[in-house]
Amino acid sequence: MEYRISDRMAALKPSAIREILKNTANPNVIPFAAGNPSPDAFPVKEISKISSIVLENSAVAALQYSVSEGYAPLRTAVDNFCEAQEPGLKDNDLDDTLIVTGGQQGIDLTAKCLLNEGDIVICEDPSFIGALNTFRSYNVKLMGVPLESDGISIEGVEAILKEYPRTKLIYLIPNFQNPGGCTMSLAKRKAVYELAKKYGAIILEDNPYGALRYENEHIPAIKTLDTTGNVVYCASFSKIISPGFRVGYLVARKELMQKLVVAKQCSDVHTPMLTQMISQQFLSTCNIDAHISSMIRLYRTKRDLMCSMIDTYFGDKITYVRPEGGLFVWCTMPCGSDMIGFVKAALEKNVAVVPGNAFCADPSAQSFSFRMNFSTPTATQITDGMEILGDVLKNFVK
Amino acid sequence: MEYRISDRMAALKPSAIREILKNTANPNVIPFAAGNPSPDAFPVKEISKISSIVLENSAVAALQYSVSEGYAPLRTAVDNFCEAQEPGLKDNDLDDTLIVTGGQQGIDLTAKCLLNEGDIVICEDPSFIGALNTFRSYNVKLMGVPLESDGISIEGVEAILKEYPRTKLIYLIPNFQNPGGCTMSLAKRKAVYELAKKYGAIILEDNPYGALRYENEHIPAIKTLDTTGNVVYCASFSKIISPGFRVGYLVARKELMQKLVVAKQCSDVHTPMLTQMISQQFLSTCNIDAHISSMIRLYRTKRDLMCSMIDTYFGDKITYVRPEGGLFVWCTMPCGSDMIGFVKAALEKNVAVVPGNAFCADPSAQSFSFRMNFSTPTATQITDGMEILGDVLKNFVK
Repeated sequence: MEYRISDRMAALKPSAIREILKNTANPNVIPFAAGNPSPDAFPVKEISKISSIVLENSAVAALQYSVSEGYAPLRTAVDNFCEAQEPGLKDNDLDDTLIVTGGQQGIDLTAKCLLNEGDIVICEDPSFIGALNTFRSYNVKLMGVPLESDGISIEGVEAILKEYPRTKLIYLIPNFQNPGGCTMSLAKRKAVYELAKKYGAIILEDNPYGALRYENEHIPAIKTLDTTGNVVYCASFSKIISPGFRVGYLVARKELMQKLVVAKQCSDVHTPMLTQMISQQFLSTCNIDAHISSMIRLYRTKRDLMCSMIDTYFGDKITYVRPEGGLFVWCTMPCGSDMIGFVKAALEKNVAVVPGNAFCADPSAQSFSFRMNFSTPTATQITDGMEILGDVLKNFVK
Repeated sequence: MEYRISDRMAALKPSAIREILKNTANPNVIPFAAGNPSPDAFPVKEISKISSIVLENSAVAALQYSVSEGYAPLRTAVDNFCEAQEPGLKDNDLDDTLIVTGGQQGIDLTAKCLLNEGDIVICEDPSFIGALNTFRSYNVKLMGVPLESDGISIEGVEAILKEYPRTKLIYLIPNFQNPGGCTMSLAKRKAVYELAKKYGAIILEDNPYGALRYENEHIPAIKTLDTTGNVVYCASFSKIISPGFRVGYLVARKELMQKLVVAKQCSDVHTPMLTQMISQQFLSTCNIDAHISSMIRLYRTKRDLMCSMIDTYFGDKITYVRPEGGLFVWCTMPCGSDMIGFVKAALEKNVAVVPGNAFCADPSAQSFSFRMNFSTPTATQITDGMEILGDVLKNFVK
């Protein structure tokens, strides 16, 4: 049997990171490649208690089919959480909230509802591989625009929009970008929104790490600037409650949301009820602010440790972005260095990092960067792993 | 903002059933329209106990990210369950098992990996609206083939394959078809498999109700006949453990499975871990056979009651299929009757049934049928509801 795979899926390969992660299931490998929250940050006791209460009081609702829009009390809890995090984000008269099976599904449904094969999607270059692969799975043309220290190049976005004024989607991770670590300035948020408005494009604003800011002032989400319906906002509880729960949400205009809900029906009918109900109870009965504050303390310490180890062991051999939040540090070797050789040699020494080209809009593009995560490894793993990396690096820096 | 919706989603409407169900959230409405398992059938105590154990012993695994293929012990438990239900279904050397977020996602991923826009999909007519809408969401051409009392018309399938030899997919629900209630004979299973083999088409065999047989002998799944990789098998635990959990599975050849796993990554990364782990523990530590037997006793009684009430209140005014298993009875009014008028009048009397045209490959086709579910309503609701329907029916039968 020779399978006739659809055009959209024919060329698509598994995520390079997920393949690397499979090889690093080995507990001896120091996990700088992952994007996992620290197990220490999981609210295990609270979840366990809430789960018992949900199954004691509302078992039938937790086990039965439900509506595609999501568990109504969770949608309300999400709205309250959003309003606290990003005041004015949702226009209650015009916008709706949809519960999705993790932020990944929010990206997938948005792509499915908007993109025809061959359509153009603008993205930061580098960007989140999970989103890039989803766009690729609709056989669109990905146009990467360089990421600068204060966010995507506005000139770069405008140049593409001028050349391709029918561009449908601009995908952005404004806060603590994955993998780049940088945060988009308010000026650029306003500028890219104005461009989207001018060209009738949709901004898909992905904000998985927004709550995890370790320093400096909060910058409002692009969606809070949106008076025209040009922004779809996507976020999740993966980084602050549990990624295994797969509970995320989309906020978008009602007209578009109708289609997103139909796509959701076709995709998985609804997000599992038990994890929706536990998330709702957690948001409503636990002190989410205190929980996030304790995560921030934990991750800030780890970020500081990793950055200080970079200074110690990499010295001036690489440049890196010190992130104001999120989970990742983006390191760049001098032009012409053998980055791939470095990543392979590091893995042989049991330290896993992700090669930068995995995140490129054009994965065959040359990259001298690599991504490191500081939330998953322990402090000891960070100090040990960075010493090893510093040693390995010497042989691969040009 | 005028949204430019993708071609594939532009014309797609929400599932008529899910819209009807929203209107019937009213507890005074007798729910013959649903497809929900009976709340009485949920193993609430066991799930509650298992959930505590999982969160006590394996909280980090339940809350953390995992692999797209699914929780490994659940995949093993699924294989064992399949082997007990459908001996020989999986060829361990050639096939793989993927955990999906409900059977709906199994259908979605199969469609996404195989179908280009404009491709032809053959389906039973009528068929499961959730699957039909998923196919429509890839902008394919649905070709309905009449459903006969022993399954899809083989001549009908062959005629389409002859005319369109590049047909990619044949979607079938061989057991206790939704909505038709009938079961495909072994002879037809063999015949349709031979046709798929001859034309290089894939059969997507959807078996959500297979375990719920109330009488007569088990007929092996088409996948058990498959020596060539022409069959993708899709099933779930929605009807025997919990639909709210959204835990289903696909069994397919490894070559195709590679693509399905990539599509799964792009869709929701992985199915939520907590419900995967609870399902695994339920399958491994509870007596699933005894649980299914008790569901069969419960549903057989309800089916018998509904059929006897049909005989009492509908008399010879309609014909119906007495299902050997599953959840649905398919009733057909005489040609020329006002079926839509009947469904609306019934809803005004607080009895909800689903109009047959919702299940047609061409939803603008005329239908004189309607679908009734017997698993959700109580015995009292069945007797009361059928009396009301019998009364309403008189005004609409030609």
